[in-house]
Amino acid sequence: MKARVHVMLKNGVLDPQGEAVRHALGSLGFDGVEGVRQGKVIELDLADGTSEDTVKDMCEKLLANTVIESYTIELN
Amino acid sequence: MKARVHVMLKNGVLDPQGEAVRHALGSLGFDGVEGVRQGKVIELDLADGTSEDTVKDMCEKLLANTVIESYTIELN
Repeated sequence: MKARVHVMLKNGVLDPQGEAVRHALGSLGFDGVEGVRQGKVIELDLADGTSEDTVKDMCEKLLANTVIESYTIELN
Repeated sequence: MKARVHVMLKNGVLDPQGEAVRHALGSLGFDGVEGVRQGKVIELDLADGTSEDTVKDMCEKLLANTVIESYTIELN
């Protein structure tokens, strides 16, 4: 089974990487880009029957820094 | 409007970051993690009416290195 985890900086946490992308898009002539946030996506190939709780545990222990990052889990 | 772009390394391109995560999950006692790929997710806040072609253009010119990375676009 596959799981996909999105890890994004929480709202209010400064995202200099996203800000750099926004600026670069403006320099390239793309108008109307009001904001950019950049995060990570982690695709996990897991043994069948792995529970969402296990994936949540992986996020809490390793994949996300929950002080400044939030995560969402998609199983399929 | 919002757009979300996923940028992943193409299949066959070595992903040392994903490999490091897979190894770390094993060390933490999570069994059955068969593979991990790590990519980027970029959330764009765009002016209303921005077309998918414009976002595609952003990907080709800046957001993805199309030699080694593939991207997918979600508009909503």
